[in-house]
Amino acid sequence: MARPSGSDAGVTGPRVRQAAERLFARHGYAAVSMRQIAAEVGIGAGALYHYTPDKQALLAGLMRDHMTEVLAGWAAADPGGDPVARLDAFARFHIRFHLDRPDAVFIAYMELRSLEPANFAEIERLRREYEAVPQDILRAGAASGAMRVPDVKLAGMALIAMLTGVNTWFREGGRLDRGAVERIYAGMARGMVGA
Amino acid sequence: MARPSGSDAGVTGPRVRQAAERLFARHGYAAVSMRQIAAEVGIGAGALYHYTPDKQALLAGLMRDHMTEVLAGWAAADPGGDPVARLDAFARFHIRFHLDRPDAVFIAYMELRSLEPANFAEIERLRREYEAVPQDILRAGAASGAMRVPDVKLAGMALIAMLTGVNTWFREGGRLDRGAVERIYAGMARGMVGA
Repeated sequence: MARPSGSDAGVTGPRVRQAAERLFARHGYAAVSMRQIAAEVGIGAGALYHYTPDKQALLAGLMRDHMTEVLAGWAAADPGGDPVARLDAFARFHIRFHLDRPDAVFIAYMELRSLEPANFAEIERLRREYEAVPQDILRAGAASGAMRVPDVKLAGMALIAMLTGVNTWFREGGRLDRGAVERIYAGMARGMVGA
Repeated sequence: MARPSGSDAGVTGPRVRQAAERLFARHGYAAVSMRQIAAEVGIGAGALYHYTPDKQALLAGLMRDHMTEVLAGWAAADPGGDPVARLDAFARFHIRFHLDRPDAVFIAYMELRSLEPANFAEIERLRREYEAVPQDILRAGAASGAMRVPDVKLAGMALIAMLTGVNTWFREGGRLDRGAVERIYAGMARGMVGA
C-alpha cells in the first residue's frame, strides 16, 4: 500500500485523532479497536497504520497534545505580575479551555490507567508542570501577604479539581452563560485563599 | 443448573460485585465481559447468571449502592444545626467516604455514559439528592448571614468537585495523613464562602 500523499496525510491525520478521541471518550480506550477507528474515519483498517503505529501511540498522542496545548494556552493567557490578578486569570482560563474540550478532558483523567509506563511517565511530567502553575501563583500570593494559603500543594490541587468540575454540569444555553460561570468561580477561587 | 444455596449466594453475590467493580474500574465497563467477571470470581460463566441478569444490572447496582451508601453515610454524619459546622463536617465526611472507595468513585464518574436510560435516570436522581446536601447547607449559611454565597448551586458543585479531587492525588503514607488533609480542605471550603 502506498503511503498517503502529503495533503492526504494533512487532512486524514487530524481526522484519525478526532475519531480516536471521540471513540475513546464514548466507550473507553480498552473497548475501542483500530478497526472501529478506521471505520469512523472512513478508511481501511490497513490504511490506518500509515497514520499511527498503534492504538497506544494514538492515546499517548492525544494526551500529550492536550497537555502541551493547556500549557501553551496558559503561557499566552498569563497576565504575570500581581498574584491575585493571576489567580483570577487562571480560574477563567482553566474553565474556558476545558469547556472547549470535553472529550480530551475526559480522556486525560480517565485513561491514565491505560498508558504504558514510558507514556505514563511523560504525561505525568506534563501534568505536574501544569499543576505547578496554580501552586506558583498561590506561593507568590502567600509570600506577598495577599493570600492565606495553609498548604500550597493542596490549595493548587483543590483549585484545579474545582474548576475542572464545571465540565460535569455546565450546559450551553443553561441558566448561566460561560462568562457568569467564570466570574463566579474566579470569585470562589479568590475566596478560598482569602484574597 | 441448580440455584446456589442461601449461604453460597450470601458469599458469592458480594464477590461478584467486588470483581465487577475492580474490573470496570481497571478496564472500563465496555471492555469487560461477563466471562472475565466469572473468571475473576472463580466460577463458571453460566453460574454468574444466578447472581445477576446481565452486565448492565451489575453496573447499575454498583452505582446505586454507591449513591445510597453516601446518602446514608451523610445522614449518619450530619451534625445538624449551625451551617458552618455542617459545612465543616460535610467536607470531612465527603473526603473520608470517597478515599475509602476509589474504584466505586471512579466508576460513579466515568460510567454514567454506559448506563441505559432508565438506570441513568435513577442514578441521576440519587446524584441530585446528594448534590442538594451542600447546596442546602450553603443556602442556610447564606440566609443566616454566616456565609457569602454568590450562587448556591455553583458553590455546591465546586465544593463536591474540590473534595472528590483528593482521590486523584492522595496516597496513604504521603506527606500528610487523612486527618490533616480533611482539616485543610474543610478550612478551604469555609474560606470559599467567607466563613
